[in-house]
Amino acid sequence: MKKTLKAILPVGFKANGVVCGLKKSGKLDLALLYSEIPALASAKFTTNSIIAAPLIVSKKHLESAKEIQAVLVNSGNANCFTGKAGIKDAEATASYVAQALKIAKNSVLVNSTGIIGKKLDIAKIKQGIPELVSGLSGPGIHKAKKAIMTTDTLAKEVSVSLKIGVKSVHICGIAKGAGMIAPDMATLLCFIMTDAKITKQALDQALDAAVNKSFNCISVDGCMSTNDTVLVLANATAGNSVISGGKDLRDFSEALECVCLDLAKMVIRDAEGATKFIQIDVCRAKNYQEARKIALNIANSALFKTAVFGENPNLGRVAAAVGACGLKIKANGLKIRLGSLKQKRVKLAVSLSRGKASATVYTADLSPEYIKINAQYN
Amino acid sequence: MKKTLKAILPVGFKANGVVCGLKKSGKLDLALLYSEIPALASAKFTTNSIIAAPLIVSKKHLESAKEIQAVLVNSGNANCFTGKAGIKDAEATASYVAQALKIAKNSVLVNSTGIIGKKLDIAKIKQGIPELVSGLSGPGIHKAKKAIMTTDTLAKEVSVSLKIGVKSVHICGIAKGAGMIAPDMATLLCFIMTDAKITKQALDQALDAAVNKSFNCISVDGCMSTNDTVLVLANATAGNSVISGGKDLRDFSEALECVCLDLAKMVIRDAEGATKFIQIDVCRAKNYQEARKIALNIANSALFKTAVFGENPNLGRVAAAVGACGLKIKANGLKIRLGSLKQKRVKLAVSLSRGKASATVYTADLSPEYIKINAQYN
Repeated sequence: MKKTLKAILPVGFKANGVVCGLKKSGKLDLALLYSEIPALASAKFTTNSIIAAPLIVSKKHLESAKEIQAVLVNSGNANCFTGKAGIKDAEATASYVAQALKIAKNSVLVNSTGIIGKKLDIAKIKQGIPELVSGLSGPGIHKAKKAIMTTDTLAKEVSVSLKIGVKSVHICGIAKGAGMIAPDMATLLCFIMTDAKITKQALDQALDAAVNKSFNCISVDGCMSTNDTVLVLANATAGNSVISGGKDLRDFSEALECVCLDLAKMVIRDAEGATKFIQIDVCRAKNYQEARKIALNIANSALFKTAVFGENPNLGRVAAAVGACGLKIKANGLKIRLGSLKQKRVKLAVSLSRGKASATVYTADLSPEYIKINAQYN
Repeated sequence: MKKTLKAILPVGFKANGVVCGLKKSGKLDLALLYSEIPALASAKFTTNSIIAAPLIVSKKHLESAKEIQAVLVNSGNANCFTGKAGIKDAEATASYVAQALKIAKNSVLVNSTGIIGKKLDIAKIKQGIPELVSGLSGPGIHKAKKAIMTTDTLAKEVSVSLKIGVKSVHICGIAKGAGMIAPDMATLLCFIMTDAKITKQALDQALDAAVNKSFNCISVDGCMSTNDTVLVLANATAGNSVISGGKDLRDFSEALECVCLDLAKMVIRDAEGATKFIQIDVCRAKNYQEARKIALNIANSALFKTAVFGENPNLGRVAAAVGACGLKIKANGLKIRLGSLKQKRVKLAVSLSRGKASATVYTADLSPEYIKINAQYN
């Protein structure tokens, strides 16, 4: 497996990003991902019960369409908590793309990210579509990756290639996310494009496993978003023998997890106001669920996160967070080791003496800058 | 019922506070509450599974002793996550008090608050005991209320009186708490003294109800402490006919809830770095538990709290927090009203259209000052 921290679209995929005017800053705010060949799709959406309108529409399209060809993403407005009008708006934007690309409406997915609770200005999106479509290209992914950003300061991108039999298979992922990041589920937008030939069942299985070990193991602020989506499109142009199980699926899954984990870590590195990247390893737990629950509870402790920001090795706050999980953890079996806080990367190891399972979670410190960013965000 | 926002000890209770040297600042850090007459006791402790040593010792004493006469409280060190030595230390401090007051060791309760994970300097406590005991008096409660403070900027105190039959009954409460405040359970130290004559069962029942509607309905940072205690001592000097049920118990419970709720609100007003006092009313829920869960999820949303700090009316963040509760809340039945953010007191009303139950929770905004306080706390 070869990896590069740059988005390189597999054959058959094109992308673009334009300014349509949703962001007051005048930055790129409308992205299109396009697959010339109808692609197999697998997706994971937020588990928040308040779901954004574009997700409702995209779920419907994923159910009715066998294959997907386009994904429209706007930043600057989440089109969430916008009622029935919001759903109509999301459907309208899918129609604009379908007409411009001459494809079926249900082969278009839509996604929005930005402020919640405000009506989406679809006239601006409609105006942006012609330029967006005419400029579609391979390198266009670099405009697309910027057009999906909100409070992100860095674009998040990674590409890997691996061998399936004698053929090279490529996977390219881009993501956005910096705040309102907490698992179950993904807490951000992530779009992955691959030329792999793979069965729907195998793709779903690989995505499920990859997301659980990546996007479901990060937290910035414990706040679950209403718009989170991780989507994989597979267009089968690599010409490999179809991946359906065995070693091929294991290799593909490993590569997909690598893409997801790299992007998830980039989200944490870009966490709003963060000055530290914190890795929390919980070991000797009874099972994985327990280890992950404890690691996430530490990751969401405002007191632990501010202590790391202050480079103040306060292990008591870790113990308090472990004890607050609702599990009967005994203090005398609890071992806590915190690495140097002077570095940008901080490692915390927690051993429970309860079993053999372990889990790793990534988070960032909590700084006054996080509050500044979110006090003013509107 | 008459109320005054000042601690006035009922007949038979004395208190004092001294400087024993646990706080580097040189401020009062050792408090003693004393009942001349052995008093009935009812207590609630943290549900954190990592429990501080003094709580382990106090629980044991409450089980073995029928009545309690003294409560020793130190600030500056929580004596938690300190192993078997910590328990021995807590027992030693109880012995010092028992010897000085010539009472049984198990009639002494001990409490500690401050940093977690550091050994308690019991030599300093031992040295402070003679002055602490010799200065016991009614007005000494005003030194005691200060000696239990850590990051608190205000002492928290309230007294109420009510009629039980023809007799006046008095209840006096003091509390400390400003950070590491989240329910289940009390998230602070609170000591309540009453001259009421009451059965153990009635006192337990009244405390349970009062704590559920007060200390279990506040959150500063969602971080659960390891030392939380709410304790009531009842010395029966009011000479009222014993309270065991009916109207008398309802009246006493109402007064006790008033004391607890006032102290709980004072904790929120004094929340670390807070600039706003936020009341969250969730109504039209299926049941109280659901209403309280949703209200607390909003109260613990870092994004909502920073928006209030920024006086930025971001209702989308409230909707996202409601949806993240794991309940199947429908967006079209959700109504959110947020009062003016320009005031110091902010009211948020959330209606769910699911039923008739409601709950109220109190919290504070999240400011850069919270981070400053906790980044440096050591």
